[in-house]
Amino acid sequence: MARRDVAPTPGREAASVGVVVMGQEGVSERADWIVVEEPLEIRARGPGQEPTSVAVTMRTPGHDAELAVGFLYTEGLVGSRAEIVSTGDWHAGRGPRGCNIVEVVLDRPFDGSALKRNFFATSSCGVCGKATLDQVAVRAPRLEPGPVVGRSVLLSLPEALRRGQAVFERTGGLHAAGLFDADGTLLAVREDVGRHNAVDKLVGHALLAGTVPLAWRILLVSGRTSFEILQKAAVAGVPIVCAVSAPSTLAISVAERLGITLVGFLRGASFNVYTHAARVDPQR
Amino acid sequence: MARRDVAPTPGREAASVGVVVMGQEGVSERADWIVVEEPLEIRARGPGQEPTSVAVTMRTPGHDAELAVGFLYTEGLVGSRAEIVSTGDWHAGRGPRGCNIVEVVLDRPFDGSALKRNFFATSSCGVCGKATLDQVAVRAPRLEPGPVVGRSVLLSLPEALRRGQAVFERTGGLHAAGLFDADGTLLAVREDVGRHNAVDKLVGHALLAGTVPLAWRILLVSGRTSFEILQKAAVAGVPIVCAVSAPSTLAISVAERLGITLVGFLRGASFNVYTHAARVDPQR
Repeated sequence: MARRDVAPTPGREAASVGVVVMGQEGVSERADWIVVEEPLEIRARGPGQEPTSVAVTMRTPGHDAELAVGFLYTEGLVGSRAEIVSTGDWHAGRGPRGCNIVEVVLDRPFDGSALKRNFFATSSCGVCGKATLDQVAVRAPRLEPGPVVGRSVLLSLPEALRRGQAVFERTGGLHAAGLFDADGTLLAVREDVGRHNAVDKLVGHALLAGTVPLAWRILLVSGRTSFEILQKAAVAGVPIVCAVSAPSTLAISVAERLGITLVGFLRGASFNVYTHAARVDPQR
Repeated sequence: MARRDVAPTPGREAASVGVVVMGQEGVSERADWIVVEEPLEIRARGPGQEPTSVAVTMRTPGHDAELAVGFLYTEGLVGSRAEIVSTGDWHAGRGPRGCNIVEVVLDRPFDGSALKRNFFATSSCGVCGKATLDQVAVRAPRLEPGPVVGRSVLLSLPEALRRGQAVFERTGGLHAAGLFDADGTLLAVREDVGRHNAVDKLVGHALLAGTVPLAWRILLVSGRTSFEILQKAAVAGVPIVCAVSAPSTLAISVAERLGITLVGFLRGASFNVYTHAARVDPQR
């Protein structure tokens, strides 16, 4: 099973569970691989500070420090790799099914109220699509022109992502996000029950490796694209975002406004380009 | 196009957007239907109280009052239909692309701190799967035995749900949740970019109609089942939860513990039963 060899951290993402199969040939029982979902609490603090509980997310265990760092970065609570002193993963020593906490220590005091400010823009009318877009624009870096990629490169991405997905093969229950360079080489893949978590893990991975902004990279997600995915891609500086399935209107709006090339229904021999099609060369 | 006739509130869920199609026959442009995603702010207050901003969720417009009420109920912030005095939908008069706020007025003071308590269980170790399950158990009503349904009834549900889905046909970008009675009759269907929102809309619909707990009903979701879906089903008292795709481990744990029959991979001529299989009769 060559596909399992690329599992990033095999073991904790899937569990074997007994299941009753009711099919045309009657009732049978067997063991099935099920994707693991557990809560993760993300905490942040400055030197000598008490930790602030920033968020609890339901996620698939594995790459938890990347997830925590990626979340803090894409939500605008951490500005750069240099601010991160350490990421304490509290699994360690407490067993794989125990407490799920990551504590991110920063080199400056952590301001917990920033999270609330991010969610509730200071608009006179509560929450508008317009205010939401303004907010992302403030936090996203100015996008570089980035690469122009051939149609054939984009068409090759889904199969490369699928080959890199270790857990989906067993469970059928996971979202995947893959980071590619401009010639279609898969650089990293992360899987999670939550689509946004898969992207946060990927961004966290890149941030910790010092490769953010991802100005010459392509992001591919296995499902649909929503506001949340484009927001995270924009903050990480990704110029081309692709998805196997459909985008939402707000995903298109973010991509349009921030200069991101958004591709959807990337499957088989064709795809749709919703915004900034100049980065795709249909002849190559 | 008979399928469009069952659209619950046609108009605002999808928008026509120009798209560049890059296929085998070259490049072309056309208009595509895209699912609408916009933020909704959910507010709650008691008589004479200032409103508390409880949550902002990215959702597909339509059935917003149901979504707000369903969210407050499944999150344990509203206990019954009788507590709800009114649901002011602030779209009205401000245009369909304006501000997205629903204010739910209760017959008693609203305690905003309850939301935070729900997310952070009073466990000595932050967040554990165990604490998460305990918390749902406290909020869920004692489940009735509920119906025993035939295998053939379950097999008929996905096609019935698909027939009831108006927007997916156009956009390919929506989750659906359907509520059925024990003989497989579709009672209501709701669609949303967020799977959890589709379920909240359905539960809110039932709560406002006075039919919660849903002790003799079947819930079908178009995608996967996670903790969140089972939590909401448990609070609404649904005894049988089905999904077209895979469950997570935590979905199975909630179902097992609270006595819910959980069905997955319900497609074609077979399905898997993960918990409490006694409610499914394989001979019928």
